[in-house]
Amino acid sequence: MPLIRDGIRLLIASSSPREYGSVRIVAKIVEGFAKDIEGVEAIHIDVYDYDIKPCLGCVSDDVMLCRYPCVIEDDMRKLYEYIVNSDGIIFITPIYWYNVPGPMKNFIDRLTVFENAIFTEGRSRLEGKVASFIAIGNDTGSIAVIQNLMAIMNSMGVVIPPWALAYHTSDEDPLENESFILDVANVVRCTVLMIKALKGIEKPIYWYRADDEYKTLVKKIARDIANNYLSSIL
Amino acid sequence: MPLIRDGIRLLIASSSPREYGSVRIVAKIVEGFAKDIEGVEAIHIDVYDYDIKPCLGCVSDDVMLCRYPCVIEDDMRKLYEYIVNSDGIIFITPIYWYNVPGPMKNFIDRLTVFENAIFTEGRSRLEGKVASFIAIGNDTGSIAVIQNLMAIMNSMGVVIPPWALAYHTSDEDPLENESFILDVANVVRCTVLMIKALKGIEKPIYWYRADDEYKTLVKKIARDIANNYLSSIL
Amino acid sequence: MPLIRDGIRLLIASSSPREYGSVRIVAKIVEGFAKDIEGVEAIHIDVYDYDIKPCLGCVSDDVMLCRYPCVIEDDMRKLYEYIVNSDGIIFITPIYWYNVPGPMKNFIDRLTVFENAIFTEGRSRLEGKVASFIAIGNDTGSIAVIQNLMAIMNSMGVVIPPWALAYHTSDEDPLENESFILDVANVVRCTVLMIKALKGIEKPIYWYRADDEYKTLVKKIARDIANNYLSSIL
Amino acid sequence: MPLIRDGIRLLIASSSPREYGSVRIVAKIVEGFAKDIEGVEAIHIDVYDYDIKPCLGCVSDDVMLCRYPCVIEDDMRKLYEYIVNSDGIIFITPIYWYNVPGPMKNFIDRLTVFENAIFTEGRSRLEGKVASFIAIGNDTGSIAVIQNLMAIMNSMGVVIPPWALAYHTSDEDPLENESFILDVANVVRCTVLMIKALKGIEKPIYWYRADDEYKTLVKKIARDIANNYLSSIL
Repeated sequence: MPLIRDGIRLLIASSSPREYGSVRIVAKIVEGFAKDIEGVEAIHIDVYDYDIKPCLGCVSDDVMLCRYPCVIEDDMRKLYEYIVNSDGIIFITPIYWYNVPGPMKNFIDRLTVFENAIFTEGRSRLEGKVASFIAIGNDTGSIAVIQNLMAIMNSMGVVIPPWALAYHTSDEDPLENESFILDVANVVRCTVLMIKALKGIEKPIYWYRADDEYKTLVKKIARDIANNYLSSIL
Repeated sequence: MPLIRDGIRLLIASSSPREYGSVRIVAKIVEGFAKDIEGVEAIHIDVYDYDIKPCLGCVSDDVMLCRYPCVIEDDMRKLYEYIVNSDGIIFITPIYWYNVPGPMKNFIDRLTVFENAIFTEGRSRLEGKVASFIAIGNDTGSIAVIQNLMAIMNSMGVVIPPWALAYHTSDEDPLENESFILDVANVVRCTVLMIKALKGIEKPIYWYRADDEYKTLVKKIARDIANNYLSSIL
Repeated sequence: MPLIRDGIRLLIASSSPREYGSVRIVAKIVEGFAKDIEGVEAIHIDVYDYDIKPCLGCVSDDVMLCRYPCVIEDDMRKLYEYIVNSDGIIFITPIYWYNVPGPMKNFIDRLTVFENAIFTEGRSRLEGKVASFIAIGNDTGSIAVIQNLMAIMNSMGVVIPPWALAYHTSDEDPLENESFILDVANVVRCTVLMIKALKGIEKPIYWYRADDEYKTLVKKIARDIANNYLSSIL
Repeated sequence: MPLIRDGIRLLIASSSPREYGSVRIVAKIVEGFAKDIEGVEAIHIDVYDYDIKPCLGCVSDDVMLCRYPCVIEDDMRKLYEYIVNSDGIIFITPIYWYNVPGPMKNFIDRLTVFENAIFTEGRSRLEGKVASFIAIGNDTGSIAVIQNLMAIMNSMGVVIPPWALAYHTSDEDPLENESFILDVANVVRCTVLMIKALKGIEKPIYWYRADDEYKTLVKKIARDIANNYLSSIL
């Protein structure tokens, strides 16, 4: 495992009530890919584990009222810090009715305080951060949810790197879906490459990797992480 | 005001934290149109006034686990009853990031227990009910949220009547937006007409009304209701 | 096979360049379900077989300029007649980049002349017609395209019956996807039931059918039609 | 006006049948912003001016059949060259039924040959290019169309820079909509900044500019270009 370098930090934000479910397993895999393959720092949080109250829409009363750190005192105070200290966010969501679950939407609504810094501080606090998106469901709806998240995050000033999406829409084990796991690895890879390009650390030569060495590595790491994670919670 | 007839009942489900905001004012207008113009029963609830916990996704563990009235004991127990006893639902949502706010999404996620009755009872409990959609925001995003709601509700077995959408996307007073108020009146009208058609009460001859008599009536009723409502909460 | 009754007529509008492809096979199955199970008239057209020029956007110059039968003289003249004479339209589209293919979009854009009759004739020529949607692709994107089509058609005054959507998103044979074929049969069933309800012919008791008799019937008819169609074009 | 530097080239792809309409005026403004403010090369094409036949879906027969420069011999041959030689594409679309018009969809469908180079050449020919999106309509639907375009282009390997969207959804003159024109200028700015970051030319310090000097400059240039363009075509 490479040393942590360049001070790159990712926030991995999942949204699943089910500790042993695919969303959380994939979130752990993403965390592992970030640390073990890309050599960056990564924190994983699941919004279901935090008390995130709904946005109160203060901005509709007066745009100057919506300012960091938000009038609501709850766990977003901590999550805001994670976001501020991250260069990129990887969203991992289950597909609940072709959309994110309510708690993830509360989390997103509460990001308004960062975007609204345009008016209160002169600039969105999310400007220039990088985001990417993974959707998992038993059934279809992945693009409906991902396209919505892309427009939302981009409207907050966020960069979307190439191949910033991965989806698994089947009731089979996502770990058996090799092209999905490869896409997930590339989501992490492209997110990190984009951060490096923006920081002037490294000029990206190519983005999506699909060579055999990488496929083998990715598959093995994913399997190991999933096994370790599932052992740890049982 | 006509007597309540035919036993038609609407649920008006809004989702706004702001009691004096446009969403709740329009919800009251919708309630008034339903009662005073269409002569049907109508109940207005705002999801922000209820304790609606997030869906736990039991259906991903075992499709037979998700059954009415849901394992979670919260205010949905009461709202489920309202829905069961309604022939149609009119959704009134603010546009929070091109989507519904978190609490409305929790409400929708919790409707899974009705849709999943396909598996647990042989038939969706929402099958054949009618739904329509009103979106209000300072900025764009109305179709993004409405099209998503249409696909969601239709996937639960719900009928979408003609002209089942109205939107106001401006920071001006929605009451000054005459075409919006006319659309809102027609959303109510078409929802009720569709319920009547399905019950065999009345065969719809035409749907959208835009004659001068109707426009004048609608404008006056909307204004009166808004004034009364605002007086009542101040 | 029942006699044609009640004068109900469906237009089945597909959009595929590939005569032997899944979209056209499913279109033929839909036509067969309409005639053989529901006993209604049905015409199948594929927009790729017609010369449908792009909309010229006259409505942006002057809303009164866009009037039936459109200034463009092409095959839409014939298709407009089919639509006028239909009670419902079943759209069958491949998923080309989470959306309909260009020719289907040209077809939809050219429907503006019907919707704009609101201004030129006092009423949308599509008001009260019924529409439903089938999307087929090798990959995801079905809900993205279907939700968009729902909002479009509803904004033209069209009714969307319960369960008005079916999708097959896999590179396997759609005929092997039994739940898809059952959904397709129910799309046809619900479209016809809705037309009957609107005409006052029959009050719908229940919508989605999933009983064994129906499943067996549907599977057999689908298989026979697909075989006949493929024989006829080879 | 700065000299052309750094070899950065933009393709501005609009889609409007109306030479004097808002879409083409804004396209000319975008071209002017690119050249006069950002100092890069820019070519403007409107897909309505070219013969772009519909995609034939060869990829569904055999993924190896869809390869550059496409079996169809039409004006895409020329447009493919423009794309290959561009670092970024700015899409400017009218909102036709919450979506792009048919000819723009044909253009997008025909980009498959570039994306499918993943299979035929080992890498998408669009990988690492930058795209942004401007939507103009009399009515709502901007986010519905933009979010779809974002997911499409990102799935082809394209980077989406911060603030890659601008929309004007009103029947008033877009030039009178100052915040829209400022957004348009920033779409061009952020697209160019992103290209520079990816080429290692310049590290972006901040993205969205809203200072008074910039606002005044942008407003004046937009007005001048619009006047010149309208004079030239009358």
